[in-house]
Amino acid sequence: MNPDQYSRGILPYIPFFYVIWSDDLLSASEISVVANNIKEDTTLTASERDHLLGWLDRDHPPGDSTIRQWKKLINEAGIRLLEGDAYPLTAFSNRLARSYQEKGADNPSLERIETNLGIQPNHYHHLFDVEVVTERVSDYYSGNEIDQFFIRSFGKEVKALRKLLSGPQFRWTIRRDKEEHREAVLEQLRILAREGYGSLAYPKAYGGKDDFPLYAAVFEHLMYVDGSLAVKFGVQFGLFGGSIQKLGTRKHHDAYLKQAGQAEILGCFAMTETLHGSNVRGINTTATYDAGSDTLTLDTPGKNDNKEYIGNALHASLATVFAQLIVAGKNHGVHAVLVPLRDNGHRELPGITVTDNGYKMGLNGVDNGKIWFRQVQVPRENLLDRYGTITGDGRYHSEIANPHKRFFTMLGTLVGGRICVAKGALSGARQALSIAVTYALNRRQFNDTAKMQEDLIMDYPSHQLRLTPPIARAYVYQAALDRLIRDYAREGDSDRRKLETQVAGIKATVTWFANQTIQECREACGGKGYLLENRLAGIKADVDIFTTFEGDNTVLLQLAAKGVLSDFRDEFNSDDFTSVLKMLGTQIGRRWAAVNPLYTNKVDKDHLFSPKFHSHALKYRTQRLTYTLAMRLRDYTRKGMSSYQAFLKVQSHLLILAKAYSAELAYGYYLEFTEGIREEKYRQLFHKLGTLYALHELRTDAGWYLEQGYLGSAKSKAIRNRVERLCTELRPHIAALVDGYGIPESCLQVPSNTPAP
Amino acid sequence: MNPDQYSRGILPYIPFFYVIWSDDLLSASEISVVANNIKEDTTLTASERDHLLGWLDRDHPPGDSTIRQWKKLINEAGIRLLEGDAYPLTAFSNRLARSYQEKGADNPSLERIETNLGIQPNHYHHLFDVEVVTERVSDYYSGNEIDQFFIRSFGKEVKALRKLLSGPQFRWTIRRDKEEHREAVLEQLRILAREGYGSLAYPKAYGGKDDFPLYAAVFEHLMYVDGSLAVKFGVQFGLFGGSIQKLGTRKHHDAYLKQAGQAEILGCFAMTETLHGSNVRGINTTATYDAGSDTLTLDTPGKNDNKEYIGNALHASLATVFAQLIVAGKNHGVHAVLVPLRDNGHRELPGITVTDNGYKMGLNGVDNGKIWFRQVQVPRENLLDRYGTITGDGRYHSEIANPHKRFFTMLGTLVGGRICVAKGALSGARQALSIAVTYALNRRQFNDTAKMQEDLIMDYPSHQLRLTPPIARAYVYQAALDRLIRDYAREGDSDRRKLETQVAGIKATVTWFANQTIQECREACGGKGYLLENRLAGIKADVDIFTTFEGDNTVLLQLAAKGVLSDFRDEFNSDDFTSVLKMLGTQIGRRWAAVNPLYTNKVDKDHLFSPKFHSHALKYRTQRLTYTLAMRLRDYTRKGMSSYQAFLKVQSHLLILAKAYSAELAYGYYLEFTEGIREEKYRQLFHKLGTLYALHELRTDAGWYLEQGYLGSAKSKAIRNRVERLCTELRPHIAALVDGYGIPESCLQVPSNTPAP
Repeated sequence: MNPDQYSRGILPYIPFFYVIWSDDLLSASEISVVANNIKEDTTLTASERDHLLGWLDRDHPPGDSTIRQWKKLINEAGIRLLEGDAYPLTAFSNRLARSYQEKGADNPSLERIETNLGIQPNHYHHLFDVEVVTERVSDYYSGNEIDQFFIRSFGKEVKALRKLLSGPQFRWTIRRDKEEHREAVLEQLRILAREGYGSLAYPKAYGGKDDFPLYAAVFEHLMYVDGSLAVKFGVQFGLFGGSIQKLGTRKHHDAYLKQAGQAEILGCFAMTETLHGSNVRGINTTATYDAGSDTLTLDTPGKNDNKEYIGNALHASLATVFAQLIVAGKNHGVHAVLVPLRDNGHRELPGITVTDNGYKMGLNGVDNGKIWFRQVQVPRENLLDRYGTITGDGRYHSEIANPHKRFFTMLGTLVGGRICVAKGALSGARQALSIAVTYALNRRQFNDTAKMQEDLIMDYPSHQLRLTPPIARAYVYQAALDRLIRDYAREGDSDRRKLETQVAGIKATVTWFANQTIQECREACGGKGYLLENRLAGIKADVDIFTTFEGDNTVLLQLAAKGVLSDFRDEFNSDDFTSVLKMLGTQIGRRWAAVNPLYTNKVDKDHLFSPKFHSHALKYRTQRLTYTLAMRLRDYTRKGMSSYQAFLKVQSHLLILAKAYSAELAYGYYLEFTEGIREEKYRQLFHKLGTLYALHELRTDAGWYLEQGYLGSAKSKAIRNRVERLCTELRPHIAALVDGYGIPESCLQVPSNTPAP
Repeated sequence: MNPDQYSRGILPYIPFFYVIWSDDLLSASEISVVANNIKEDTTLTASERDHLLGWLDRDHPPGDSTIRQWKKLINEAGIRLLEGDAYPLTAFSNRLARSYQEKGADNPSLERIETNLGIQPNHYHHLFDVEVVTERVSDYYSGNEIDQFFIRSFGKEVKALRKLLSGPQFRWTIRRDKEEHREAVLEQLRILAREGYGSLAYPKAYGGKDDFPLYAAVFEHLMYVDGSLAVKFGVQFGLFGGSIQKLGTRKHHDAYLKQAGQAEILGCFAMTETLHGSNVRGINTTATYDAGSDTLTLDTPGKNDNKEYIGNALHASLATVFAQLIVAGKNHGVHAVLVPLRDNGHRELPGITVTDNGYKMGLNGVDNGKIWFRQVQVPRENLLDRYGTITGDGRYHSEIANPHKRFFTMLGTLVGGRICVAKGALSGARQALSIAVTYALNRRQFNDTAKMQEDLIMDYPSHQLRLTPPIARAYVYQAALDRLIRDYAREGDSDRRKLETQVAGIKATVTWFANQTIQECREACGGKGYLLENRLAGIKADVDIFTTFEGDNTVLLQLAAKGVLSDFRDEFNSDDFTSVLKMLGTQIGRRWAAVNPLYTNKVDKDHLFSPKFHSHALKYRTQRLTYTLAMRLRDYTRKGMSSYQAFLKVQSHLLILAKAYSAELAYGYYLEFTEGIREEKYRQLFHKLGTLYALHELRTDAGWYLEQGYLGSAKSKAIRNRVERLCTELRPHIAALVDGYGIPESCLQVPSNTPAP
């Protein structure tokens, strides 16, 4: 090898050009990065400049023999590549140039190329045959700082909570016996109540802080300790206490709220019935008012009309029971009534029967049970009567005349629980990702026969592609959920229905995402992931049911889609829906025509990385699906079908629309979040994560976009390649990214190599 | 409503036209079905014929008011629709015509339309407002007869097995304590051994029947009883006994095989090490030959070089241990050695340490453990020396000179276990599908406010779309696996490598399919699916690890893809790969050009349902991906990259190729299976299932096909619609389809409404 053929100015560019050409890094925007650098590089002579620019011609790329020559030159230099260098490829290249020609200064301008192209150590780790001194992680970003962006509004409180949860009372351990598990969880619940965590969302007058966002943050953290604890906490303080707070009035608050928050009264939330899981309006339990005794009689009419899967059912002394309220022979629809279940000796009261639901896939620390009521009398005052009351003279009264609207208003107040479920599922996913990444940064398998040490599995592209997109998605969902929590906490019933639509879609999206991700993480940890001691198995089993409870995902998506459809109708505020659609058809048609071939095949990095493009694409999908859905429904209706029939026929369309809507919504809220970040360095990181999220979504739905002609083949392929490359670019920061989730160290049991006996 | 406007001949056609036009059933092939019927219908006058044909013009469809008029006419007839009728819509239509005009004969020719369009009761169930007398299932097909197509080669044996497994010793129950669970499973294992099931695959001389397919069928059935039992059975008789059979020689067979088959010797298969899960060639355990004592010394060098996740480790007295064989200071690579673990009192022998792996997500009835060897001596004869031996004078000898080839030959003999794992996972999926379908045929939720009874959830399109494609896929995989089992059993080492490629791809595909399906089924059963008593939770936990053991799926897919690539190279049998590719580029290019616009947008039913189209599409994908993969690798190699580096860069491409290959392979074998079916009625059913499988695959990968220009937008949409419609068409037969899996009734605990106390 005669390095003399390359002059001193050209030499340090050689490794860059090798990486660029062997790795297909070159697209128009990348060429301009390199070309600009060359043009402005004052260390180069004019002829060196021309020479280098000649290597940037995509139509006439350097020949294979040239590229092989570069590689040989690099390999034979006998120098090392230090991943710990601030700009490893730049430092390596300058060392290489010096090794061949001692004279001449280092070229610092190469740093710019290194940064802008996002070339990462693990790129060239496998490209050169030189000794690579590996750093497993970069400290360019700090997990702690990432975490701050999410917890800053209550950093102090979260810090205290994390300290508490790291204590011995909250240490996780394998518990196979449900009774033992339930006792342990109950004890933890009491500790949390004592420390004031139970009543955080309640008014200050009742020992609370009126702080729902902080309550939700606590719930999120409890998932890291044990899914059972989080669910038990949610049932006691969120569902039970929350139903008193939201559905009750002053008298109920005074009587119960403080004690509920302190876990002095344990309660349950008895809504679901065996025969009516998702169809709450169809429940059969009745609460019949008797004017003579001024009492309500709760009754389970049929043997399968019992309450089912009721959390806290075995420990509770009081229950919020949902029943058809019958006053003077008239059914006023579903209302909630407080019903004592047990006496001071924890014996079931007359007419009450509670049985254990038995072992479940997970959450065995939660005492789920079935409850039957046989002619159980309670005072009239026990009706939680914020939205409908029975007056002293025995008449039913409600401010909301329409029973349908009344029912949804009551349920709407409980939407906070649904957000918490999504948050909890997300915690499970984040915990699983942390465990899987830590494992992948320690586990080695296979190697290039030339090397002594096997490769870290985190350095395999397939492993990066497996774990990095969900890491990005978890950040997007976190920002979106935090926003929904703030909206919910702000009260003001005006946008309630819109919030419900949003929450329904996001809850389904996030809980499904969590289940897929946890499964992916289990597989990514191989056999280690299957052992209970390493937590993943338990997380998976616990989070599984999150797709079902607090609203079955399939049912929720239909609810969300109907909300979107209704917004679409409202938007044009017209009584004559048909004429609106006609108009819209033209309008939307014209807007879509704007998607021209230049756009559908624009593959430049700047474009593909632009939030404007992402938002447009995600919005286009939602709008298009809404429009076609509305058209289909109109056609069915015109043919004489009932609304119920028509909606059945478009059911799969509804599900797709709701998913698209949720994807767009989450991204929109994420962008708002990133706009609040001032530190340029972190803005860049969050921009990259957002881009990965958006491109990953487009990639997932590429079939649809291609069908619509929104994406051309070239663009679709470019998106796929960008997703893969982004995963590699984020590789050095992957440890910081999972640290950024802020999970207490004590909650991260990592599959490790168990020591020999 | 004045029905007089329609003549007697036209009247019975009205419900058909309403169904057809309100349901978008009309494509060219369907129009021709209806048109032909009308043309040949002798009950019609010429003008009636013209009138009816006029309603078939897609360019000038009947107006909405006409369609509404039809519906009104139907609704007001006041007649009932009986799903139990052989041709419910035909019978209904004739009754309708009679109700308006008593005179005139019934029109039987309508049956032909009803059959050919695949209109199903649940189509019009939601379309008309008449009383529909519902039958939940059709008895047109029999599950028992479907089952026969799969078990006919050993129907008697399977029947006996099912009877045995329905007995009290095999009754499933919740077991939370692993010791208790392990004891129960061990007892069941011994019963199976006593009945001769353990040695089925062994030669007759050793108590067997030389019948691997029957052995695999037993394994498949044991999954229905308990995943732990199946795995324990596979470890004892397949891995341990199988290693003696396949890797050992006469002396080993004589000494151990019969006893292994009778579970008189319990053994384990100690291959995996903590540090080397997938990379078996990298294991560190050594077996060093000492000529003086004529013994082999087994040793675990480092503290993490222990054997890991070894099934049967706690119960075994003997182990097949994989170790680097060192003779006269030279390492001859990985070989298997029989090593006694425990004495007659079940105490660990000197130098042996076994510890329990502890609780796992599932399979807690299997005693997985870790094993360390500290200078453990065994006689030279304990080397399982079919492929490499130590001669009496202390020299190593093997017929296979190449150590790489020798290693893969040894592993190749064990590929039967991998097929069983896929079969076992498939059993889990089938069991879950059976449970979910039975549940969906009993569970009702929501309804049209006009109706008394809520709808069965099986009648929701989203539910059909959720469960029907996996039911079809399970049949395709079953046929494919049965074929692979026969190929494996046929021995003859010629196509061994090809079989390994196939098995690697199918194992990964089927185990992932199983996990997704079980999860889908759990969600489809809502909260009921989460209770351990209903089996799904346990099935899910057990089958989870099937994606990892007997070869991690991601690693296996890469193996499969490399096999495909190697076939591709062999096919052209040339030393100069580059020139082969050049030639191929032209060839394939020309063939692809044949995909013309008429083809890419052909949406006719006959075409979309044609196996020729399916096979072409699946094959096109494999070939195209293979070709582009080969091109990419060539380019990287030309640039000087090592093969290891180049393969890393195409890793995700490899995974996609292997999946595509497996999809094509499974369909091909399924078609062969269907060709063996003579009964026309069942041929039709299996053709429909195969079509659903193939179209579902194309739908899943539609993005890629659209990118390639293989599918046009219209065709892609048509495929999506056909998948949905096929699910609805199969709805009446869904009970028969899951009955056809042949799962013993005793193994199907179905989520039910628990009776009141």
